[in-house]
Amino acid sequence: MATHSHLRVQDIGEQGLLKRLLAFCPAEIVGDDAALLTVAAGRSLVVTTDVLVDGVHFSDRTTAPEDAGWRAAAANLSDLAAMGASPLGITVGLAVPGDRTVAWAERMYAGLTECLQTYDTVIVGGDVCRSTVTTISITALGQVEPDRAIRRATAQPGDAIVVTGPHGGSRAGLELLLHPEAGRDLSLDDRAPLIRIHQRPKPRLDVLPELSRGRVAGMDSSDGLADAIVQICRASGVGATVDRSQIPIPPALRGWVAAHQALEWALYGGEDFELVLCLDLEAAQRLVDRLGAGAAIVGTITATPEVWLTGQGEPTQLTLDRGFQHFA
Amino acid sequence: MATHSHLRVQDIGEQGLLKRLLAFCPAEIVGDDAALLTVAAGRSLVVTTDVLVDGVHFSDRTTAPEDAGWRAAAANLSDLAAMGASPLGITVGLAVPGDRTVAWAERMYAGLTECLQTYDTVIVGGDVCRSTVTTISITALGQVEPDRAIRRATAQPGDAIVVTGPHGGSRAGLELLLHPEAGRDLSLDDRAPLIRIHQRPKPRLDVLPELSRGRVAGMDSSDGLADAIVQICRASGVGATVDRSQIPIPPALRGWVAAHQALEWALYGGEDFELVLCLDLEAAQRLVDRLGAGAAIVGTITATPEVWLTGQGEPTQLTLDRGFQHFA
Repeated sequence: MATHSHLRVQDIGEQGLLKRLLAFCPAEIVGDDAALLTVAAGRSLVVTTDVLVDGVHFSDRTTAPEDAGWRAAAANLSDLAAMGASPLGITVGLAVPGDRTVAWAERMYAGLTECLQTYDTVIVGGDVCRSTVTTISITALGQVEPDRAIRRATAQPGDAIVVTGPHGGSRAGLELLLHPEAGRDLSLDDRAPLIRIHQRPKPRLDVLPELSRGRVAGMDSSDGLADAIVQICRASGVGATVDRSQIPIPPALRGWVAAHQALEWALYGGEDFELVLCLDLEAAQRLVDRLGAGAAIVGTITATPEVWLTGQGEPTQLTLDRGFQHFA
Repeated sequence: MATHSHLRVQDIGEQGLLKRLLAFCPAEIVGDDAALLTVAAGRSLVVTTDVLVDGVHFSDRTTAPEDAGWRAAAANLSDLAAMGASPLGITVGLAVPGDRTVAWAERMYAGLTECLQTYDTVIVGGDVCRSTVTTISITALGQVEPDRAIRRATAQPGDAIVVTGPHGGSRAGLELLLHPEAGRDLSLDDRAPLIRIHQRPKPRLDVLPELSRGRVAGMDSSDGLADAIVQICRASGVGATVDRSQIPIPPALRGWVAAHQALEWALYGGEDFELVLCLDLEAAQRLVDRLGAGAAIVGTITATPEVWLTGQGEPTQLTLDRGFQHFA
């Protein structure tokens, strides 16, 4: 969409902006007071909401508007994947200062829709209003067969803990964006993929068809791998042992920083948007074989309600004190 | 909920606040990555989103937190009613400055849930994050039999235009809140109901069971009665004549301000949250009889795509220039 880059929201008003942004939504769905969607027979509706605020979750300093849009969509699709649900669509509520450019909003929506299209889904509704700070509120809608929903509270002692891909890459990419000089020892071939992991995370909706029927507990690792494991254990009333040496780390990261730093980012960095799944050992091994590419069994669920890190060095107990740092 | 009134969001953090606000959601629905809901067989899912910003849509100066919550819920339930849909639940995304009191947030949620309970529905999910300005993003979910959905684009020449209740009361109530001295000629018995209409609007979900099967075009009058009529006509490619003398006005308002002022507030005031419905004359008369209490036929849909005000004085053409004033 060709937009004069200096045109500001206050020049066309919120209604003018809303009209332009409707171009990103399928005409047959929106345009009335509300969108009409079809949930397939026998499926449950899954709903999840995220609020992203300028300066907290994204910033012009580190994030192009297309990337802010992609990441917002990806985070919400990842919440659906974490429930085992396939997407029906998202709604977008945009609060925006009058001096924001219209081009910013259109580029952010372009990023949103680029991510959504990758996963065959769309924007099904929204609202625009003025504010003093840019705020993007997303509600993602999905559907799942009720007996295939992935829950946090159903892990059982003896389950294997599967991660669907490498961890630490997103935090490493952020480091390279915030402190480019830190990556001076990295080749461009090593730097680019780490930055890409941070800017264009991939929700693991592709994992769902690979899951066999049967109990699967789990969630996504958007708040960090350590957080995911502790949350699942708390909700299920169980514990876990996690083998440090089995946690998959992106190769570029492994060759760049010390092992303890890479492990720290893998456990606490967050925003890798992989799934952390607990299922019986046989099903877990089958799943890891099918997924390949960085998927791994990293530990075992235990009856004692404590989470221990084992392998490579002293066993240490895992708590959430670090995982929640970025909410402080 | 007993909360020390000076406790601020920054004292307990966003996670601490989220934990407290979860008390307002049914435990069996939330607590995982997303909520699971059931859409009845043969029903379509209806989705609508609103963003409300402090200083634009509500303000501590004129709105108690309970009322801000009630109004936010009511506006979204009204969007569902406008589609003919019954509610499944709402999600709430709250962005909040650290120096807001926790009590404000809890009182706002109490208002939200009080309204939702009145209409047998609940909060099914949400998110809390920090921001520099309080922003409430609501997505309402509902369900409707596809062939009973109310659309804007299906009005036909000859249809009667029904309003489900009086108009102008919300604007009058706002006037009394902003300029209490303007109401010095009104008794308390006349003042209180007008203020109540503004603070505690009622979404007209009760109208839906009264609708016969068959085509019904329409929307709600949240942006004003004039806006609703013009929007329906535009979407349907038709026009209308509206009889000024048939527009129901709250009795207290009629006795307080001049007739032209009352008509102005009824047409352009907005936020009365009634339904404006177009259906054949016989069905319209049946509906008005069933609803009673201020419901009325106010005009007729015409083939010529213009909207004319008739009755009591010169015919004048209705445009949206006034109806959109509050978006400027």
